[in-house]
Amino acid sequence: MGQGAKDINRRKFLRHTASVTALSAAALVLPRAHAEEMTPDDPMRVPGTLPRPYGARSLFEKPTRLGGAGPGAPHGWGTNAPNNFNSLTPLQDLHGIVTPSSLHFERHHNGVPAIDPARHRLLIHGLVERPLIFTVDELERLPAVSRLAFVECSGNTWDGWREAQDVSVQDLYGLTSNSEWTGVKLSTLLEAVGIRREATWMLAEGGDAAGLDRSVPLTEEVLQEAMICYGQNGEALRPEQGYPLRLLLPGLEGNINVKWLRRLKLGSAPFMTRWETAKYTDLMPDGKAYQFSLVMEAKSVITYPSGRQQIPPGFQEIRGLAWSGRGRVTKVEVSVDGGRTWQGALLQEPVLSKCHTRFRLPWRWNGQEAILQSRCVDETGYLQPTRQDLVKVRGNNSLYHYHAIQSWRVERDGWVRNIYA
Amino acid sequence: MGQGAKDINRRKFLRHTASVTALSAAALVLPRAHAEEMTPDDPMRVPGTLPRPYGARSLFEKPTRLGGAGPGAPHGWGTNAPNNFNSLTPLQDLHGIVTPSSLHFERHHNGVPAIDPARHRLLIHGLVERPLIFTVDELERLPAVSRLAFVECSGNTWDGWREAQDVSVQDLYGLTSNSEWTGVKLSTLLEAVGIRREATWMLAEGGDAAGLDRSVPLTEEVLQEAMICYGQNGEALRPEQGYPLRLLLPGLEGNINVKWLRRLKLGSAPFMTRWETAKYTDLMPDGKAYQFSLVMEAKSVITYPSGRQQIPPGFQEIRGLAWSGRGRVTKVEVSVDGGRTWQGALLQEPVLSKCHTRFRLPWRWNGQEAILQSRCVDETGYLQPTRQDLVKVRGNNSLYHYHAIQSWRVERDGWVRNIYA
Repeated sequence: MGQGAKDINRRKFLRHTASVTALSAAALVLPRAHAEEMTPDDPMRVPGTLPRPYGARSLFEKPTRLGGAGPGAPHGWGTNAPNNFNSLTPLQDLHGIVTPSSLHFERHHNGVPAIDPARHRLLIHGLVERPLIFTVDELERLPAVSRLAFVECSGNTWDGWREAQDVSVQDLYGLTSNSEWTGVKLSTLLEAVGIRREATWMLAEGGDAAGLDRSVPLTEEVLQEAMICYGQNGEALRPEQGYPLRLLLPGLEGNINVKWLRRLKLGSAPFMTRWETAKYTDLMPDGKAYQFSLVMEAKSVITYPSGRQQIPPGFQEIRGLAWSGRGRVTKVEVSVDGGRTWQGALLQEPVLSKCHTRFRLPWRWNGQEAILQSRCVDETGYLQPTRQDLVKVRGNNSLYHYHAIQSWRVERDGWVRNIYA
Repeated sequence: MGQGAKDINRRKFLRHTASVTALSAAALVLPRAHAEEMTPDDPMRVPGTLPRPYGARSLFEKPTRLGGAGPGAPHGWGTNAPNNFNSLTPLQDLHGIVTPSSLHFERHHNGVPAIDPARHRLLIHGLVERPLIFTVDELERLPAVSRLAFVECSGNTWDGWREAQDVSVQDLYGLTSNSEWTGVKLSTLLEAVGIRREATWMLAEGGDAAGLDRSVPLTEEVLQEAMICYGQNGEALRPEQGYPLRLLLPGLEGNINVKWLRRLKLGSAPFMTRWETAKYTDLMPDGKAYQFSLVMEAKSVITYPSGRQQIPPGFQEIRGLAWSGRGRVTKVEVSVDGGRTWQGALLQEPVLSKCHTRFRLPWRWNGQEAILQSRCVDETGYLQPTRQDLVKVRGNNSLYHYHAIQSWRVERDGWVRNIYA
């Protein structure tokens, strides 16, 4: 290639990428612009550290799940009692679809109990032929199943109903996380206890100090997919996710995926616990409330660029996550002009049912104001609604199940703000 | 159902499962057999702990990557110099296919360097139109890709060549781990620097104190699949896996997936570094050595029951992992009689290319001696060989690329030993 062609290619590349610095090999001696005392001037001249039994992240890595936007964040830490709290996954800092277990969101109603797995038991009783008690070891020896699946609190994005201002994607969307879960199928245990024909509901009770319990409808889907999990991302469940046992109901609201699971009681009607009467119902505009609105509908959000980030002009890869409690995500579209035009985003394989799906779209920001949106379609054909359409049907009395299209406005200085378009 | 049917069902279930205890609901008050001081008698009566910015596993969880079989383990810790070591993934303790990053194996030649990501650079030079230096931030803004893939040290299972006795699956197989990796494709960067037509090899150099460097053949497959990674299981690479940047060559031996990557030099021939001449070659029976035998062939191993475990009589779920550097695993078969008969195992979805695949087979152990084996086939049709067939071709001078069928003997007392069948 001649010089002209080279220059054209270089310009073409630079047009599509972040700015890069062309230097000769001799220029590899680096300025110590951001040096910190903890690292040697030249790591190649100092023998490295020894192995660790159980590793940890680099000291330079700072993402945390305690609120995205600092002291002003509407979420994070306490709610109305010291041990009743949220913590939020920093979606803006994550890659791919696996949420690191250490950054999985938390939603607890009386803190994280300290449970000795050797003393923990799972009782199954009620409308069964023979009540049984299982140890954790016994459950781990039964036929197992693993799957990648999201868990999303039904209160995720509840600030969307009340139009919270100047928040990050962590603040708004941080109550969803995605893990590889391993456990025994509920159906295996129900075969063991002999479920009676009249059993159509199941109470699931957690072993925390809130005694959180929920009624689970024994639908065909639940019977096929529900798991009693002891594994998360290859190792044991984390304490915050229910160690040593949790219920997993893929696609259903987080609260019903009961953590620290100690008891399943089969019945012929819902049990009407506090957590499905006083809480976790959806108040409609006419004052009536939906109860047992359990499915998390199709939803997506752009995680970069997103609220409280500042972007430079030029090439950006728009990145985000999409998911649906009804199955696979089949399409994600992105708009950079507030919904006037839409382009199909690339879905990163593997695209799995009831699992976060990573999407990507290349974009060149020209320095002008832009409104970024994403919308997804799931395998049932459901299209994620606009905020206007959602509020038209649901009003905005509710706290739960907000799943409208998110709008981020990129301002001329590169700062990104959430807006309600 | 009448009582007779119930009893039959119960017997049928117990025949297929671990022993379970049938108790009435009133029996939920538990004995404190394994109580530890750290947990309350009843966790439901004590408010739980507050959220943590970055979580940790339960204090009851003990798996470590420092050797599987205790002080007598042939692997783990030092080799021939203090900072030249292995550590091993505890495969016997893991679920599913994601290896927790804290338990990913380590193989270092001069320890783990402490690198400030803000000061780290990647230089690409040699047979290119324009040498370029990238910061980590610049790489993170380029078009990204994520995939689940294994990394296996070519020395994994080298004790198989020399018939090490009484070892665990961690000791023998712990130098393979599986993660979701995120980064930029090598081809994206080569487009940026403008690769010259005569460039057929690439030197990859790490920034550790060993200065580990390897020659990478620029095959079609490498150009399509190679990645420069900054993400592992959702967060930044761990220091032990190359923080802040590593090369990922899915399916090729671990050593060439250069960690702490600082330099790529394009050339027209291999660079003949120490790490591909004095080390990481395969000595054949006739005294010649294979060089650049990079692909990790199809391989499988049963992780439960496995060496140094003791199993109870009755139902077991045989569990294991299979993988191939040439693509997807298409079949795993298990023998419980030393290879006389084989049964197809269930492959846990998703089954992905160059990725660990979890397999499972229900088995009832009758208390008699049994020899457990697994063998896999990959999408090229390659069948994992017996040890006899492998040694016939390869001899046993080599240290690397052992991938024969593994045999575990279950003795009458339930103890499992590795044998060379």
